[in-house]
Amino acid sequence: MTTQKAKTTQNTYRKRTGQANRSHPVKLGGETKSKRQPNSNAVRFIAFGGLEEIGRNMMVLEYRDDVIVVDAGLQFPEEDTPGIDYIIPNTSYLELKKRKIRGLIITHGHYDHIGAIPYVLEQIGNPTIYATELAKEIIMKRQSDFPNAPKPNFHIIKGGDKLKFSDNFSVEIFSVEHSIPEGFGLIFNTPVGKIVHPGEFKFDYGNDGKPKGLGVWENIGKQGIHTLMLDITNSSVPGWSVSERVVERELEKIFKSAEGRIIVGTFSSLLDRIAEIIKIGEKLGRVVMLSGYSLKSNVEIARRLGLIKVKKGTIVPVEEIRNYKDDKILILSTGAQGEEKASLMRIISGGHRQVKVKKTDTFVFSSSVIPGNERSIQNLKDNLARQGAHIYDYKMLDIHSSGHAPQEELKKVMELVNPKHFLPIHGNFFMRWQNAQLAKEAIGLANEKIVLADNGLVVEIAKDGIGVTGEEIPASYVLVDGLGVGDVGEVVLRDRRTLADGGMVVIIAVINKKTGQVLKNPDIISRGFVYLRDNQDLLTAVRNKIRNIIKRTSNRRSADPDYIKALIRDQIGEFLFKKTQRRPMILPVIIEL
Amino acid sequence: MTTQKAKTTQNTYRKRTGQANRSHPVKLGGETKSKRQPNSNAVRFIAFGGLEEIGRNMMVLEYRDDVIVVDAGLQFPEEDTPGIDYIIPNTSYLELKKRKIRGLIITHGHYDHIGAIPYVLEQIGNPTIYATELAKEIIMKRQSDFPNAPKPNFHIIKGGDKLKFSDNFSVEIFSVEHSIPEGFGLIFNTPVGKIVHPGEFKFDYGNDGKPKGLGVWENIGKQGIHTLMLDITNSSVPGWSVSERVVERELEKIFKSAEGRIIVGTFSSLLDRIAEIIKIGEKLGRVVMLSGYSLKSNVEIARRLGLIKVKKGTIVPVEEIRNYKDDKILILSTGAQGEEKASLMRIISGGHRQVKVKKTDTFVFSSSVIPGNERSIQNLKDNLARQGAHIYDYKMLDIHSSGHAPQEELKKVMELVNPKHFLPIHGNFFMRWQNAQLAKEAIGLANEKIVLADNGLVVEIAKDGIGVTGEEIPASYVLVDGLGVGDVGEVVLRDRRTLADGGMVVIIAVINKKTGQVLKNPDIISRGFVYLRDNQDLLTAVRNKIRNIIKRTSNRRSADPDYIKALIRDQIGEFLFKKTQRRPMILPVIIEL
Repeated sequence: MTTQKAKTTQNTYRKRTGQANRSHPVKLGGETKSKRQPNSNAVRFIAFGGLEEIGRNMMVLEYRDDVIVVDAGLQFPEEDTPGIDYIIPNTSYLELKKRKIRGLIITHGHYDHIGAIPYVLEQIGNPTIYATELAKEIIMKRQSDFPNAPKPNFHIIKGGDKLKFSDNFSVEIFSVEHSIPEGFGLIFNTPVGKIVHPGEFKFDYGNDGKPKGLGVWENIGKQGIHTLMLDITNSSVPGWSVSERVVERELEKIFKSAEGRIIVGTFSSLLDRIAEIIKIGEKLGRVVMLSGYSLKSNVEIARRLGLIKVKKGTIVPVEEIRNYKDDKILILSTGAQGEEKASLMRIISGGHRQVKVKKTDTFVFSSSVIPGNERSIQNLKDNLARQGAHIYDYKMLDIHSSGHAPQEELKKVMELVNPKHFLPIHGNFFMRWQNAQLAKEAIGLANEKIVLADNGLVVEIAKDGIGVTGEEIPASYVLVDGLGVGDVGEVVLRDRRTLADGGMVVIIAVINKKTGQVLKNPDIISRGFVYLRDNQDLLTAVRNKIRNIIKRTSNRRSADPDYIKALIRDQIGEFLFKKTQRRPMILPVIIEL
Repeated sequence: MTTQKAKTTQNTYRKRTGQANRSHPVKLGGETKSKRQPNSNAVRFIAFGGLEEIGRNMMVLEYRDDVIVVDAGLQFPEEDTPGIDYIIPNTSYLELKKRKIRGLIITHGHYDHIGAIPYVLEQIGNPTIYATELAKEIIMKRQSDFPNAPKPNFHIIKGGDKLKFSDNFSVEIFSVEHSIPEGFGLIFNTPVGKIVHPGEFKFDYGNDGKPKGLGVWENIGKQGIHTLMLDITNSSVPGWSVSERVVERELEKIFKSAEGRIIVGTFSSLLDRIAEIIKIGEKLGRVVMLSGYSLKSNVEIARRLGLIKVKKGTIVPVEEIRNYKDDKILILSTGAQGEEKASLMRIISGGHRQVKVKKTDTFVFSSSVIPGNERSIQNLKDNLARQGAHIYDYKMLDIHSSGHAPQEELKKVMELVNPKHFLPIHGNFFMRWQNAQLAKEAIGLANEKIVLADNGLVVEIAKDGIGVTGEEIPASYVLVDGLGVGDVGEVVLRDRRTLADGGMVVIIAVINKKTGQVLKNPDIISRGFVYLRDNQDLLTAVRNKIRNIIKRTSNRRSADPDYIKALIRDQIGEFLFKKTQRRPMILPVIIEL
């Protein structure tokens, strides 16, 4: 099979940095009421992230003078954002409205829902954070890396709580199943009706294989729901979730058949899975060792809160590995995505202090592959297979289940909640569009009852309908790079991409300020282009060209350094392209003495 | 869901450039006979690519003075090879043996099997190319881009042919089903026994859903096969192929229900699928327009050779689109992977001259997603969905089927061929390891009968067994970048990656050669780092630091420019890291006057 690997499109990035061509309305139905007066009787919905990507979730519901913010998450960098640490939501709109913010509600403790807090909390006026105990602890753990950030104020919530923000605006909390304990959905009681944001969820299944806890959705349906949002991360996945009971059973089977050590790679954020694995290990009489900082820290928090219950002596430090026989050891490790510095990578590449791979080891990858990580994971498994260990991954057996509802579960929720209007959230347009098709299929919603908004587009939820207004709020990427937040923009990124593709050539010419004549053989330095040392002919030709360019200009009165630089950039750039078919960045420097 | 995106590992690249730590034997079984005398009665197998990646397929079988080369393919660049056009096999071993090369046999006309020919043919002594008519035409089409390359000599082959290279060494050609017409497998008759290289294949299915043409494999099995190679691209995919008859049926269903134009995105290399689509279009009374250079060129070749049969008037130029009603139009387009300049991207982004998206259009993506292209394809579909067209992809319906046999088909071939030894090819170690597990399951092969070699490792196929010798042949990546072949190495790539991550800062200090004193305020130029203009304080601080460094050294006799440069690199690098937590490349230039 043969096909061209797609180059990253500049379009993608431009779109995301807010320079999109929005000539096509970004909604399925409803009426675009362009630039008309806002309807003061409507609830406004705006997402600052999470509608055109997976991650960076942050949205508001506002009614007149009350603004409620839901989540403040981050997104990991992409192919076209080289060198960037995180991408966070643009909160400039909220900064203007900070006096009206009644609270920041956190649906659950994952980084794509809480990770932007240290960067944006102060900017939006340090509102009270409504979060569960677990989410609070994870947020506070992270906050310790930001000693200058203001102290957050928490209000701890639990399922069944009601938060009254004003006479017109209150929120009920309900518990949902996800991949971390204490996941929440929200019912907003507003003057236009009830609006449901179910957080992120999937179905829980009993040992009989039947979904449990559907009563929650039935009860919501009975209340008469005006608008349902829905996490559509898995809207292209057919069928139902793999039951966590099946995952448990399959893991137990593998664990039982393992003759040596068991080493499980997973995400530190999959706390529910981690709890299951520890439980099975304990049941089979193995001690559990945790390898990886975030894993240890998350398990410690969950134990302190009673969310993971283990007997004394089950969890032992990996440093004590020599005290136990191989068939009594279960190691839980981060790094199943092939992250370079993570524990699993160190184990497999031989760089882990306590754990080296043995042929009798059984490695279990209990997590899915995040798009973009295929190669790193492939590499990890190649290295592992070379060492002769036993390997199981989720493609071979049902040893992983996503935290997000697939198609049939999404449809079931739509049927049970039976909303009048539908507003898919979390994920790209096409995925939300697919989910809109599901909604039509499942509950026969007409086009005008479904809104596919984009980040920054104001959605008015009125008594009699729902639609995108013409108003647009800044929602472009804010890039975090080292200590800088927002100081890396499109120009810096474009330069990084150019440098990555073709490297660069710096040309330094020292000229006499008065005569314009070259004082010294031009210096040429290149990186990422070709080895100039191996290309002396090319180097000589470039030097001669530079001398000629400067010579020609030195006879002209109009010759200023910028003009000479432009000539060098163009002519040397073209010359090098002709000779090599490569386009390095050309940086001419003229030093006048 | 939250997880860290894996950073590209330097390890990956190093491994592939041949600096791997091979402390672990790279074979499942057999005995590593390290550095012993070669067995002159054995056949030697060496892969120069295709054993640690998908692509770059090129391997040899040699017996004493006869070397037969199979395929010469390219691989597309990877995340850790920025700016590179292609990766090709390392042929230095073959260059030494060129007088013994009896021929280059091409299994089929895909670029991962023929794409390196223009780069390596002359180097390996311009041997006769044994290829089908179709492969020859595709090779010659490509050759026209390389006017200085020598004229290739072809020997046209077809299924059933026997090629006798010497008394001891002959090859029988047999036809296999793939995704391009005229795919071939090879049976090598050697003094040690018969060795089968089945090319790339999948099963063909009848209308009754039963696999057709299994007789080929049965016949091979009857001959008594010493060693079977097997393309394991899909060794992690369970079950059987989706039948192309099902694909045809599903496509026809969609085409029939389409009210407006039909636009199908696919690969130009999937010639079998293209033929099916044209046939259905013709049957439904639609004219077919081809959009995309490689598509037009491939269809033209296939028609000329009678491999695609269409009535006169079925294929019309896309320029004549205005002459036809929408419901009479079927457009076939390249670019289903979201490639920036491909036809489908231009159609969807509004840049195609003749075709703009209409709401009544039906878009069909009849190809799978190549890992690494997820984002580009997502972007393409987002843009399309925004414009309100109908969209179908292979996840929604059975409208694509891979050209590579999945697990059950691989097992079936193993059972029918029933080889004594097994040598999985095409794809990473873990995938070949998985396939080895299949072989044990399907035909009960013992570990020592299976060899998992790596690129460049010599496998001896002897009468009484098969194993990796200690000999290692150069098989590292050769990178093609513009006109340069092999001149971009690890240093240039590492620089590109560093530049991409943190940008760079050039520091130019002009000093008096005699006194070592600074003659001029140092020049600082940066790209891809931060906007220095917005960071005047930082700029001033850096300038002062540079002045101080030079001042300190100017008092010392030992101060040479290299020493000053090293000081600037270290101290300014650390200073900038402290201030920004970023690590740009620091390039100090000292100009002595």
